[in-house]
Amino acid sequence: MLGMMQDWPLLCHKVIDHAATYHGQREVVSRSVEGPFHRTNYAQVRGRAMQLAQRLDRDGYGVGDRIATMAWNTWRHLETWYGILGVGSIYHTLNPRLFPDQIAWIMNDAEDRVLFVDLTFVKLVEVIAPKVPSLERIVILTDDAHMPETSLQNVVSYESYIAEADGDFAWVDLDERTAAGMCYTSGTTGDPKGVVYTHRSNVLHAMAALQPDMLNLSSRDRLMPVVPLFHANGWSTAFSGPMSGCAMVMPGAGMDGASIYEILTQEKVTITAAVPTIWLMLLQHMEKHGGSLPDLKRVVIGGSACPRAITQAFQDTYGVEVIHAWGMTEMSPLGTICSVKPEYAHLEGADKLDLQVKQGHPPFTVEMKITDDENQELPWDAKTFGRLKVRGPAVSSSYYKGRGAEQFDAENWFDTGDVAHVDPHGYMQITDRAKDVIKSGGEWISSIEIENLAVGHPEVAEAAVIGVAHPKWDERPLLVIVVKEGQSPSKQSLLEFLEGKIAHWWMPNDVVFVDEIPHTATGKIQKTALREQLRDYAFPID
Amino acid sequence: MLGMMQDWPLLCHKVIDHAATYHGQREVVSRSVEGPFHRTNYAQVRGRAMQLAQRLDRDGYGVGDRIATMAWNTWRHLETWYGILGVGSIYHTLNPRLFPDQIAWIMNDAEDRVLFVDLTFVKLVEVIAPKVPSLERIVILTDDAHMPETSLQNVVSYESYIAEADGDFAWVDLDERTAAGMCYTSGTTGDPKGVVYTHRSNVLHAMAALQPDMLNLSSRDRLMPVVPLFHANGWSTAFSGPMSGCAMVMPGAGMDGASIYEILTQEKVTITAAVPTIWLMLLQHMEKHGGSLPDLKRVVIGGSACPRAITQAFQDTYGVEVIHAWGMTEMSPLGTICSVKPEYAHLEGADKLDLQVKQGHPPFTVEMKITDDENQELPWDAKTFGRLKVRGPAVSSSYYKGRGAEQFDAENWFDTGDVAHVDPHGYMQITDRAKDVIKSGGEWISSIEIENLAVGHPEVAEAAVIGVAHPKWDERPLLVIVVKEGQSPSKQSLLEFLEGKIAHWWMPNDVVFVDEIPHTATGKIQKTALREQLRDYAFPID
Ligand SMILES: Nc1ncnc2c1ncn2[C@@H]1O[C@H](COP(=O)(O)O)[C@@H](O)[C@H]1O
Repeated sequence: MLGMMQDWPLLCHKVIDHAATYHGQREVVSRSVEGPFHRTNYAQVRGRAMQLAQRLDRDGYGVGDRIATMAWNTWRHLETWYGILGVGSIYHTLNPRLFPDQIAWIMNDAEDRVLFVDLTFVKLVEVIAPKVPSLERIVILTDDAHMPETSLQNVVSYESYIAEADGDFAWVDLDERTAAGMCYTSGTTGDPKGVVYTHRSNVLHAMAALQPDMLNLSSRDRLMPVVPLFHANGWSTAFSGPMSGCAMVMPGAGMDGASIYEILTQEKVTITAAVPTIWLMLLQHMEKHGGSLPDLKRVVIGGSACPRAITQAFQDTYGVEVIHAWGMTEMSPLGTICSVKPEYAHLEGADKLDLQVKQGHPPFTVEMKITDDENQELPWDAKTFGRLKVRGPAVSSSYYKGRGAEQFDAENWFDTGDVAHVDPHGYMQITDRAKDVIKSGGEWISSIEIENLAVGHPEVAEAAVIGVAHPKWDERPLLVIVVKEGQSPSKQSLLEFLEGKIAHWWMPNDVVFVDEIPHTATGKIQKTALREQLRDYAFPID
Repeated sequence: MLGMMQDWPLLCHKVIDHAATYHGQREVVSRSVEGPFHRTNYAQVRGRAMQLAQRLDRDGYGVGDRIATMAWNTWRHLETWYGILGVGSIYHTLNPRLFPDQIAWIMNDAEDRVLFVDLTFVKLVEVIAPKVPSLERIVILTDDAHMPETSLQNVVSYESYIAEADGDFAWVDLDERTAAGMCYTSGTTGDPKGVVYTHRSNVLHAMAALQPDMLNLSSRDRLMPVVPLFHANGWSTAFSGPMSGCAMVMPGAGMDGASIYEILTQEKVTITAAVPTIWLMLLQHMEKHGGSLPDLKRVVIGGSACPRAITQAFQDTYGVEVIHAWGMTEMSPLGTICSVKPEYAHLEGADKLDLQVKQGHPPFTVEMKITDDENQELPWDAKTFGRLKVRGPAVSSSYYKGRGAEQFDAENWFDTGDVAHVDPHGYMQITDRAKDVIKSGGEWISSIEIENLAVGHPEVAEAAVIGVAHPKWDERPLLVIVVKEGQSPSKQSLLEFLEGKIAHWWMPNDVVFVDEIPHTATGKIQKTALREQLRDYAFPID
């Protein structure tokens, strides 16, 4: 027997409808790519998204079409998403930090028909566009006055493109499982794999993400997503923000410490989100130039493990609570957040920081388990680590065109490729990537745990640990270090620093100093490249 | 093109799975019907619900069967819901405050096969059961030691019923639109109408209800639903509580001021919810016996309009924030909550209380509009009032067996039967029930607004306003008053009290004093009965 409740499909554009209706005057402030700050609100964002949808519809774009964006976080980018969604098309975010050939490959794989691009990336697109035959039109996210000289064909400014439509339009009605968005994972090996979000997954994900134990977003917040919309579905901020009715502050292209500090304080941001690298830049800026963060209450840090020192600086020096988060493109992206359950509410100081090194616990809608290589579930004892697998309505069921099928099992468990342990209260901690874990004499050693400790050394700027072949133990850890400017710690002092903090058999067999550690486009350590770089390294024979 | 996200149906029993997995040790404390306090947790509640599901399954109950409960809020009632849900059956909550014949009518309409009943109601069920031929078994929510003498057939204690099962069972897999629960509206006229919730509607509703601008439930809260589970889907607390991971405090049969005060303070409740009558009792108790509410942070008040005086007492005297909420059985039940948006964040004192008299704004998932009798939408100017219509995934699409079809239109707008105005920021205020609105010379007068003001008079215990036929104006308002013990205000003083607070043409034409105002089973003023009682009243000729 079916129940008797309304068939009200979960559609992304209902989110902007809600924001425009109940929070219509709420500010959306952006640092524009042209320079000046720009102020609008949800009612206007919706109105202009409606114009865009109408114009796209008139130009023959509709359900299922892939429409790409390569843009910073601004009001125009937000409007673009909703305009695309409202006509039933699929927003496809491109990461401009990838190599041009990679971007062209991705666009061809997705068969993007239109591209919305920021002024910043026009030169890049001039290189890419000729290699993407499916591309019919390029809309530059600016007005006519700021249109650049360009060799691109079929180019129009965003403002004149939407000016052609009066906004008298109705969102397209859709099945909630219709494809809504697309984002390719910046895999460190192999071809990129496309993740395809649905309207349903985006809406459910946002509803889960803004809950009190997760982002805790209310209409009284002012949210600044520093994490770009092209990184892992923009951490859902384009949906959870308007759904909560909070004000949004969009940092545009200003990604340096000074710009972030300026907009954070000037716009009285209460909650912000980005990867650790960004926060390191901000903290360094403030260390040098002084300053305080009186309005900022919470900073969400994820994308890679949040170093304890960052958490400590935010909390102890600036009174800002850190929310460590873990997720991935395939999870829309939220997996876990390290908010404090009552079991840990008594923790203070160092003990609290110890907790916050963990990636945290999932919201309702995310199931997780850890298993060994034979898919046997492992205990949640905060020690035993295994492959982290997840399931839920906003978790991928497959990649575009069926790639990477080995990551999905028959019961929908998705193998994240992360290795983690979980504590009895469900707090998960990533200990490694499955492919980076060091297998020493049949036992696993977490490269990340050693890295996290090593960066705590006062003279270390960055640390990486990789497994290197060893005649007796199969693999043993090698510590790779970038020293801070002007410092020159000894190998000995670095290893001594780790003593007592890790098991004796985890101790790296050697230390190597390098000028730079290679990173992926999203700022993570690129272990494959590092291993490649140190290919000829062999442990000293003792 | 469909997206590539997992098919993860929204099922109610996943809520208790989540609670048991990530908040397994979180307390569920109850005042047992037998007397003593009882303590358990989500892991155990799930385990025992699993036993119950297994037992029901073994006895031949499954998808689509209606299984009734007539019970107070206790851990056993909570387990019963999840056990029923987990086997695919439908929990059907019965309101013991209805007349026995009404209850029998409802049970026959639903064809309930099993009844779970508290000790309190065994005598009542002895009268009802013989009239319900579909009823096969009665489970009394106690253990063998407390089983009463009874004339009932096929009776078993809950504890021995579930003891037969070892809990080695798996929840039944279901389509998320499967019927999950049933609750009849206690309509003041006509036959009761059955509302049928789905798994999907309950889950989406809970996800919306616990958000920061709504109930704002976190794992650090201790939630006490005083509102019974049999009242309007228990205000979703059976789902939003476990979903958030908060502790739950269940007041059992202790519904008087002293019992509520005891459990609130002893169990350090942080958030609680009930109808205004309950809070009046608590406040009166505290006025007499003293006391404070140091742990309580928020009190959710709904079910009927929350008098300003209650809000003021909680906030000013006890430092507890009032959350005025509006909803109805057909809405699962949440419609709106009067949390403070930034536009009103500056309000204090009397101005804030003015805001809190409003029922508030809806979460994402609830759409609303106000219309005139011709279904034309009316403006949101905080003045113009009209019929309130709503839409959403947790709003009824029809009543059981197609009753009341005139309340639903082709576009799924459900006519709530309430009359309301809405302000430009989307704050809705109920001004009346459609059938109680007084039509004076073609204009509408809100009976409720006058009532709310009249109860502010220091000598008034309760007030009601009804329309009485008038030769010139069709209808004019009559003020009906129950005076406080020992008081005897004059008609003149009552009308003078209203002067300046309402438009001149809203002024009641007369005042009538009565000993008692009739109420429905859920504590609302029963205007039909009141009109009946005053049938012979006519306005004095002036
Ligand atoms: N808080 C975190 N701590 C450690 N690793 C993280 C964290 N957040 C994300 N990651 C890593 O980033 C991967 C997802 O990458 P992406 O899909 O590009 O966002 C995850 O599988 C993790 O390996």
